[in-house]
Amino acid sequence: MDWLLIAPIAGVVSILAAVYLYFYISRQDSGNEKMREISGAIREGANAYLKRQYSTLAIFVVVVAVVLLIVFWNPSNWIQGPSRAFAYVIGSVCSGLAGFFGMNVALKANVRTANGARSSLSKAFSVAFFGGAVMGLSVVGLALIGISGLYYAFNDPKVVLTFSLGASSMALFAKAGGGIYTKTADIGADLVGKVEIGIPEDDPRNPAVIADNVGDNVGDVAGMGADLFDSFVASIVASMILGVAMVSVNSSFAILPMLLAGAGIFASILGMLFMKISVGNNPGAALNRGTYITCIVFAVLALGFKYLLDLNWGIYFATIAGLVAGIVIGMTTDFFTSIDRTPVKKTAESAKTGAAINILSGFSYGIISIVPPIIGICVAMIASWNLATIGLTGLSSSQTIATQVYGISISAVGMLSIVGMIVSADAYGPIVDNAKGIAEQAGIEKEFVDVADKLDAAGNTAKAITKGFAIGAAALTVIALFVAYAELAEIPVDASGLYVINIANPYILAGVFLGAMMPPLISALLILGVGRNAFRMVQEIRRQFKEIPGLLEGKGKPDYAQCVDIAAKGALRELILPSVLAMIAPIIVGFVLGKEALAGFLAGSIITGIIFALFMANSGGTWDNAKKYIEAGGFGGKGSDAHKAAVVGDTVGDPFKDTAGPSLNTMITVMSLVASVFAPLIAMFTLL
Amino acid sequence: MDWLLIAPIAGVVSILAAVYLYFYISRQDSGNEKMREISGAIREGANAYLKRQYSTLAIFVVVVAVVLLIVFWNPSNWIQGPSRAFAYVIGSVCSGLAGFFGMNVALKANVRTANGARSSLSKAFSVAFFGGAVMGLSVVGLALIGISGLYYAFNDPKVVLTFSLGASSMALFAKAGGGIYTKTADIGADLVGKVEIGIPEDDPRNPAVIADNVGDNVGDVAGMGADLFDSFVASIVASMILGVAMVSVNSSFAILPMLLAGAGIFASILGMLFMKISVGNNPGAALNRGTYITCIVFAVLALGFKYLLDLNWGIYFATIAGLVAGIVIGMTTDFFTSIDRTPVKKTAESAKTGAAINILSGFSYGIISIVPPIIGICVAMIASWNLATIGLTGLSSSQTIATQVYGISISAVGMLSIVGMIVSADAYGPIVDNAKGIAEQAGIEKEFVDVADKLDAAGNTAKAITKGFAIGAAALTVIALFVAYAELAEIPVDASGLYVINIANPYILAGVFLGAMMPPLISALLILGVGRNAFRMVQEIRRQFKEIPGLLEGKGKPDYAQCVDIAAKGALRELILPSVLAMIAPIIVGFVLGKEALAGFLAGSIITGIIFALFMANSGGTWDNAKKYIEAGGFGGKGSDAHKAAVVGDTVGDPFKDTAGPSLNTMITVMSLVASVFAPLIAMFTLL
Repeated sequence: MDWLLIAPIAGVVSILAAVYLYFYISRQDSGNEKMREISGAIREGANAYLKRQYSTLAIFVVVVAVVLLIVFWNPSNWIQGPSRAFAYVIGSVCSGLAGFFGMNVALKANVRTANGARSSLSKAFSVAFFGGAVMGLSVVGLALIGISGLYYAFNDPKVVLTFSLGASSMALFAKAGGGIYTKTADIGADLVGKVEIGIPEDDPRNPAVIADNVGDNVGDVAGMGADLFDSFVASIVASMILGVAMVSVNSSFAILPMLLAGAGIFASILGMLFMKISVGNNPGAALNRGTYITCIVFAVLALGFKYLLDLNWGIYFATIAGLVAGIVIGMTTDFFTSIDRTPVKKTAESAKTGAAINILSGFSYGIISIVPPIIGICVAMIASWNLATIGLTGLSSSQTIATQVYGISISAVGMLSIVGMIVSADAYGPIVDNAKGIAEQAGIEKEFVDVADKLDAAGNTAKAITKGFAIGAAALTVIALFVAYAELAEIPVDASGLYVINIANPYILAGVFLGAMMPPLISALLILGVGRNAFRMVQEIRRQFKEIPGLLEGKGKPDYAQCVDIAAKGALRELILPSVLAMIAPIIVGFVLGKEALAGFLAGSIITGIIFALFMANSGGTWDNAKKYIEAGGFGGKGSDAHKAAVVGDTVGDPFKDTAGPSLNTMITVMSLVASVFAPLIAMFTLL
Repeated sequence: MDWLLIAPIAGVVSILAAVYLYFYISRQDSGNEKMREISGAIREGANAYLKRQYSTLAIFVVVVAVVLLIVFWNPSNWIQGPSRAFAYVIGSVCSGLAGFFGMNVALKANVRTANGARSSLSKAFSVAFFGGAVMGLSVVGLALIGISGLYYAFNDPKVVLTFSLGASSMALFAKAGGGIYTKTADIGADLVGKVEIGIPEDDPRNPAVIADNVGDNVGDVAGMGADLFDSFVASIVASMILGVAMVSVNSSFAILPMLLAGAGIFASILGMLFMKISVGNNPGAALNRGTYITCIVFAVLALGFKYLLDLNWGIYFATIAGLVAGIVIGMTTDFFTSIDRTPVKKTAESAKTGAAINILSGFSYGIISIVPPIIGICVAMIASWNLATIGLTGLSSSQTIATQVYGISISAVGMLSIVGMIVSADAYGPIVDNAKGIAEQAGIEKEFVDVADKLDAAGNTAKAITKGFAIGAAALTVIALFVAYAELAEIPVDASGLYVINIANPYILAGVFLGAMMPPLISALLILGVGRNAFRMVQEIRRQFKEIPGLLEGKGKPDYAQCVDIAAKGALRELILPSVLAMIAPIIVGFVLGKEALAGFLAGSIITGIIFALFMANSGGTWDNAKKYIEAGGFGGKGSDAHKAAVVGDTVGDPFKDTAGPSLNTMITVMSLVASVFAPLIAMFTLL
């Protein structure tokens, strides 16, 4: 039987489930007129941004497709170029589609969640969670249909690799652009609204309030969806590339990653159904329970494949090692950013001594938080390397090495298998955040706003966990991609059959240094972009408060569209340099210093990429929750000097956690994929 | 002729010059009674701290010496253990002595500079600069006497390696402890004095003012001296270790590093003499000119050695490549932190939008500033690798590789050769800073304070350059140490004779990850230490202002000693965890993951160590100067909201640039030396 059929079937099932949920959401009542008006403004702004972003990116996608056509032009095998160009375009479109579809549902779900809060918590929770699930299911469904379809059509993992590159470059734009957009609006709205004028958050008088709500959607929903789409695809492709070289060990290794991904989809759907029936009064616990159920179901399904495909135990253990590492990384992230734990409390306390010490504390705890995930990644890597060969006998030395390397890549697949669930839980966050905003702006009764608040708190924790998970998954994925690059670039192997990337060679060491420099550099460029654009936003908001009569008193009508436009234009302008730099740097390093140095470059970028991504995400989360801790009454409470200091920390953390940090994992994936796709070319022409 | 004699001779000449300058400084007039009183209080506080630090560290030194005795106990070659223990103790003592001696002169020079400002700028400049030169000359003199003496006595570079370890561990304590001390005092004094009470900097009513002045000396003078002592020694030792394996190429390679260091001493002395006669009215230009002259003289002297020792041209070129890289790194640091350049101006401008954006800007520019030095280090590394064999013919493949590796290490020696000059220029900074403080506290005439101000501005630029230089030098040094470790740990070589440290091996890659985690982790621990201790200091200052009657009005007398005591006790308490962690981590990694993984660990620590050291030093410098730019009248000037925002940025930058950043290069050197010294042991016992 053709087991591979499971993959497209799972993909189609996933899309059908998403469509079903879409209609479920649409059927819900969208509340009173005021609510519909607000949510209409948000939708309009979000669609305007996505339209602008996609039409800009379309040009980029066409250019890259043409480059691929030319670079892989091969008269004796004419399919090479067109197949890659096609796969690249499809990858971009699928990634964009998943983001677009998911975001549109989120924009429907937010107002319906707000309205649902008026009947019951569990009602509102269902709307919000299944709104997010449309995104989660679209991501994994489109990814798996795309991968397995291309594999059926061309039977060449290298074509699937260009699909992955298409998805990743789109994800980089989506994360970086969305990240700049959302923080421009957020910082601008806060600096003038909360700090200067003294009006509350989400106040309808603030001209940037709609831009802020739009930002939550384009940054967190569409961006995060594209990000995990990208990691999910990349981990599968990397394993497939390593797997095809290993038919002599087990002929199923090439297709196993797709099957595991399919199993993950079924597990996620089961987990979601279970969550629906168990929400009770604690949405946070329900989200966690759903995730754990998904993991257990996945472990059982994967065990089934072990027997069906006659896999050795070792490969199964490696899969589970990845899954466990993902959960551990998510949980430690939770510890460092949870509002009721020491790091956040200490950071909040330090705000009593002023903004500077508060910033230094959050910065330091963010850095300390990298220790558990890095140890977790190292353990998962070494464990899956050593476990992978269990149950195999009579392997040659090079077969052993190949299986061990494959074990590491399959642990990344294991980690990412539950991505459907992760994206759903993550997209839930901005939906309830928006719902709360809409409830407040529409002035619905206090008790219902409290329900929305409760849903929102659960969303913040879910978001912290999924962010840690996304970064951990990206780490294992890029390690797998790093080896896939070595395979594709035909890096020489040693006597045992292991690729040699020797950092005692100064060219390779230079590559490592240059690669290590990239993630911090890109972060800095993105942060400066946010700063510049926030500056423009601040000036516009100040202008409106000065020039529009009666605005502060609630009589004048703010010009929301102008702020939306500033955020959108600025985001697209500021994302170009960092994104293009990320795509071009590996090619330059490859051509100037050689393919081995490029391997070093990738390794270097992975190392600092993970460190900076984790530290920035977690420092940002710590400052954010330290502020919330004070707002909840700690250390002087709202309006105290400590609170003002904590607001500064929170603002510093905004671009850390929502722009730079989450862009980095996408960025290192893009760099690895660019290197892998262009590896044959780089191997041919090298300067030094 | 025994050319090696040049090394101890240069060392002795250096010490004699230092002694001569010591008496020159002592002969100068130490000003009026008020000035003597203030400087006496500073001296008292500084000596109390150093006494406390050294007596704590003495226990540590004895423990390590005993460990070395036991670990290297060898009945068939009994000198192994005792020689290492002896060298370790001597290394610690020399490093401590250089710091102690240099600091004491700095404490004499500060008040005499303040008094000198009353006669002329060039007079004051001479006192300040030659005060710093005592430190510079002591550092290089003691280092060279120690190294060459031990080499004469034991003829074994491995013994000299333990000398280096002694110097490094002492330097780590000095940098970390001094850094915590100085920022505790500085932040505490500023937060209460400037921000809460609104009295100016260096105001004698502030109870922490003396602690602040003491801090400049124990942190910047003693700490920086110990730091460069450590890099200087380590670069020489690493090259010697690589050189002894190469007698077949040129028998002088083992002693060449010591001779180049000797040439650097003579060049530095000439550069100082030239500076003395050319100061005119622009101290900044004089400092730079002196540095350039030193470089040129060194290049000429090194050329002489090329002919004397019959070296090939390649080795000479490698030496000069390092020197040039050092200057380039220093100059780019200058660009990013100079008060009249774009990064500082933009950061200052961003303060108009509040503290958060100001912090984000300085953070980003600090990160962008790592690009030129990292490219500089890569170019120097690849250039010296390729240049090293020029002029050599008939080498075997392994001789070629060995020469190329030696070339990299000798470029580090080239870079550090002018360390005598660098330390002098660096120590000049805190001397004039203190002089300015004393002048203000003693209330001398405004026009003389302006002279001190002018000297101080030149000092700030010199400090930024020398910090960049120190980090660049440490980078090349640790790269050389990394290879020396491979030599000592007997890491296997490939067919061409190059050590193989293959990051495609998951153990080694895990080592890289863990190593890369260390520098940020240590930074975070140090910064948290500063935060905790500053908190204690703030409470004490608040207490004094509340309890001592008439303190604010200038009638009550503040209890300076109490603040000095808090800074000192806290510094010693907070430095223990990070320092001990740095020393134990390589041993644990080596024993658990193996000697190759430890090589990966060292590489990882070098990569992030350099990145974090550069970024933290430069972000700190940018914020500092952005604040000064505003104080000089830009963007609203002193007292404006922008100024308040910039003060927050400056405070965040304080532990970045003066505690964590500068500790990192010492820390990575210590880790490399610990690994190298214990390499034989690690090779014997490994868990995995």
